[in-house]
Amino acid sequence: MSADFSKGAAWMDGEIVPVSDAKISVLDWGFTRSDSTYDVASVRNGAFFRLDDYLARFQESLAKVRIDVPQTADEMRDIVHAIVARSGLRDSYVAMVASRGVPLVPGTRDPRQCGNHFFAWCIPYVHVIKPDIAARGAHLFVPQDVRRIPPDSVDPTAKNYHWGDLTRGLFEALDAGFDTAVLLDHQGNVTEGPGFNVFSLKGDCVRTPDSGVLEGITRRTVLELCGELGLETEVRPIALDEFLESDEVFTATTGGGVAPVTRVNDRVFSNDTPGPVTKRISETYLSWFDRPEHRQPVAYV
Amino acid sequence: MSADFSKGAAWMDGEIVPVSDAKISVLDWGFTRSDSTYDVASVRNGAFFRLDDYLARFQESLAKVRIDVPQTADEMRDIVHAIVARSGLRDSYVAMVASRGVPLVPGTRDPRQCGNHFFAWCIPYVHVIKPDIAARGAHLFVPQDVRRIPPDSVDPTAKNYHWGDLTRGLFEALDAGFDTAVLLDHQGNVTEGPGFNVFSLKGDCVRTPDSGVLEGITRRTVLELCGELGLETEVRPIALDEFLESDEVFTATTGGGVAPVTRVNDRVFSNDTPGPVTKRISETYLSWFDRPEHRQPVAYV
Repeated sequence: MSADFSKGAAWMDGEIVPVSDAKISVLDWGFTRSDSTYDVASVRNGAFFRLDDYLARFQESLAKVRIDVPQTADEMRDIVHAIVARSGLRDSYVAMVASRGVPLVPGTRDPRQCGNHFFAWCIPYVHVIKPDIAARGAHLFVPQDVRRIPPDSVDPTAKNYHWGDLTRGLFEALDAGFDTAVLLDHQGNVTEGPGFNVFSLKGDCVRTPDSGVLEGITRRTVLELCGELGLETEVRPIALDEFLESDEVFTATTGGGVAPVTRVNDRVFSNDTPGPVTKRISETYLSWFDRPEHRQPVAYV
Repeated sequence: MSADFSKGAAWMDGEIVPVSDAKISVLDWGFTRSDSTYDVASVRNGAFFRLDDYLARFQESLAKVRIDVPQTADEMRDIVHAIVARSGLRDSYVAMVASRGVPLVPGTRDPRQCGNHFFAWCIPYVHVIKPDIAARGAHLFVPQDVRRIPPDSVDPTAKNYHWGDLTRGLFEALDAGFDTAVLLDHQGNVTEGPGFNVFSLKGDCVRTPDSGVLEGITRRTVLELCGELGLETEVRPIALDEFLESDEVFTATTGGGVAPVTRVNDRVFSNDTPGPVTKRISETYLSWFDRPEHRQPVAYV
């Protein structure tokens, strides 16, 4: 019987396997110390979007957390193309992961004595904000008692799995009847949510937080396309009060692109319907997928 | 050929397997969101130490992170006894882990829609501070630019794998020629190191930080036995300056018990040799392993 790749494929230890067969040791420090870094690219309509930008950021993350894997960026590109091709998925969420690995010296506590390793997997495309929620506009909850892990504890620009704060915020949001959460930092500024950056529109200026957040590729794309649309952009701290005074709010993520937000806590934006500027930005974002310089078609078999 | 359990055993999905065969999915949120909690007990000389205290703390951690597994505390006790018995290890480091699991609804981002699961594993006993280092006294580095993840981001009393800050501190310590690190919190108080609590002795008073730290069972044991030894104890914030003015400093962890510290940054304690009070506390700690109320012998086959 041939393997079932319909739920996704993974590359692990040199082999391509169904994603459900891709596993790591319970002793891997990537798990027991969350000592890993990762990146997530996407395939839409049979082609990667800005893959080389994701690969470049991933190389930077690897250096920041001092994980050294044998694969070069070129080999990683080949690997993610190969797993998506094998899966047959035309729309896919594609993760590249590097982990500290298991100790090579029994009982060691020295992170330099572990078997760093790379793996990758792809699954059907994921919408971080589900399409029905994006259609009506997402409702975000900003908890007061949970704050984003500060950059001097864990560097958010090295994409990481330290999501305990985001998970706490998400539970609070769901308990309170909201769709998802956005966390403040310890200075009271807006940071990010579980898997997305946030943006605030005021007049013709689009703003997004400068620190304490992942420097998202979708975030970068939004900032670039706003320039083309004649909108101003500002990357700087945004206090909660200012955020709540936005004309429009939206999220941006590789998993779903730009999604409108119509409520933050008890504040309602643009008559509780997705705002017109957000809509224009979202449509422009999708149109960028067809730009040849950003598009790398997958060679399906 | 019979399985090799000499490197440890694990319980996973109802089966006992060699620890190297115990794996989790790369899609498990325990990994991809570090959404898990765990505890580590120890077996010395064929018996668990204070196992029911570790089990009780683990139940509290599970409730705090809202992970709900099918196994009761009694079943977990049976499971860890069974894996240690199968391994044959007379001295063992025994981990109990609960993970959010993989999404049960494809593409979901809702932590309530995942398959929470429990597993356990044991390996030969681990010394967090290696015996040769403990013999001469450990050298601790306190980095200024890396701070412990604050409790309002991730609750340290629910034992968790968010170790990015500790790993950064550990790399800095190793780079600077120290054995390991202790992190400050954002108020400048001492917290804990990668896998251990810290104590400061001044006169006949033993002090340990009150917040931003794991409420270690070994820490608790040390506080209890200090009472028997006629030492005062204080659980309260300890600023770095006060810490550096200690007469003696020591660490406490399930993985190795009490270990003397002879240097913190450029400060040298008790003539660069393990202090006499630390030695008494360490010996008393080891003697408590023979107390019947704390000892649960493993029924090896």
